[in-house]
Amino acid sequence: MVVKVHGPAYASATRRVLACLFDKEIEFEIVPVDLLKGEHKNPDFLKLQPFGVVPVIQDGDLTLYESRAIIRYYAEKYKSQGVDLLGTSVEDRAVVEQWLEVEGQNFHPPIYTLVLQILYYPKLGLPIDEKAVKEGEENLGKVLDIYEERLSKSKYLAGDFYSLADLSHLPFTHYLVTDIGKGYMIKDRKHVNAWWEDISNRPSWKKVLDL
Amino acid sequence: MVVKVHGPAYASATRRVLACLFDKEIEFEIVPVDLLKGEHKNPDFLKLQPFGVVPVIQDGDLTLYESRAIIRYYAEKYKSQGVDLLGTSVEDRAVVEQWLEVEGQNFHPPIYTLVLQILYYPKLGLPIDEKAVKEGEENLGKVLDIYEERLSKSKYLAGDFYSLADLSHLPFTHYLVTDIGKGYMIKDRKHVNAWWEDISNRPSWKKVLDL
Repeated sequence: MVVKVHGPAYASATRRVLACLFDKEIEFEIVPVDLLKGEHKNPDFLKLQPFGVVPVIQDGDLTLYESRAIIRYYAEKYKSQGVDLLGTSVEDRAVVEQWLEVEGQNFHPPIYTLVLQILYYPKLGLPIDEKAVKEGEENLGKVLDIYEERLSKSKYLAGDFYSLADLSHLPFTHYLVTDIGKGYMIKDRKHVNAWWEDISNRPSWKKVLDL
Repeated sequence: MVVKVHGPAYASATRRVLACLFDKEIEFEIVPVDLLKGEHKNPDFLKLQPFGVVPVIQDGDLTLYESRAIIRYYAEKYKSQGVDLLGTSVEDRAVVEQWLEVEGQNFHPPIYTLVLQILYYPKLGLPIDEKAVKEGEENLGKVLDIYEERLSKSKYLAGDFYSLADLSHLPFTHYLVTDIGKGYMIKDRKHVNAWWEDISNRPSWKKVLDL
């Protein structure tokens, strides 16, 4: 059964799912959703995803959304296939979950603000809110300072193994470094930079960017 | 081994953890953290939780923070003890994870804004931002409309079984109904209201409120 992934391959949350599918060696096909045409707000799409955001997967009888729920599902269901993304014990997984929550609750909000304001607002003809950008950078900096301390003690966020916690940071950190000129926030932090060099050069992530 | 829970029992994220510990029949002791005295920003606390927020648990050698990571840990580790909070299959858990993510990413931000503005800003001597309150209520209303549709088809969010997804909504919905006078947002939605009546009357939640 080939997994159907609804959503453009360039969308950040879709990329989170695709990086996981490549690591888990799971076959998939992309079902295009044209965000510029508003197809994610069409009635047919809303039947799959009532909040009107990408991605959604269909896998046999299972329809599932929320990118971080989808990656957990494949990491658990195919634990022994491809790269193990959850660690080897229940305690390992607990720490993976801790950093996955930190990504969703602490890292994501300020980096999302920066990407939205600097990359997308100009494209939409909206003025950049410089105060929001300044606050976003300050808040993201505080989070990255904690990451720097953590990554001085372990190679990856959850320990000495690559996991969903690291993977989940790929899409938005890619924007930060490549698209909005804030790469110094990574490069100026030695251990965060080494971590980023490692995870962003993984073959599975390169395949995502090549799509 | 008794689980140590650092954080005042009245804090919303601590309550999320305590509700889970009661459901899983796990012994715990509260280690008080006086938020008004700023004890969550003390160096000793920051060694346990670098972001300076409650709760943190200590369980033998494991120190863990992020309330939604902690509840996942206990639900998985003690799957067959107390109430099963993850469903019976990997697919059940996937749907639990979906709604747990919806809680964290869609439900929490607007309800947090409402509670912060209406309950805490006056206590801190800060003026209420009426525009933020209006937007928070609009956004929460849209989320609850989707819940209403979902709960017209299944008794609980992830299906016909109570799970972490429902449990995670308890602390802030309690504020909404009890402390900030917005209970009509629940009562005016028939299925959301039936769900709330059910989950808020569970013995484990009543024990949390009694602490």
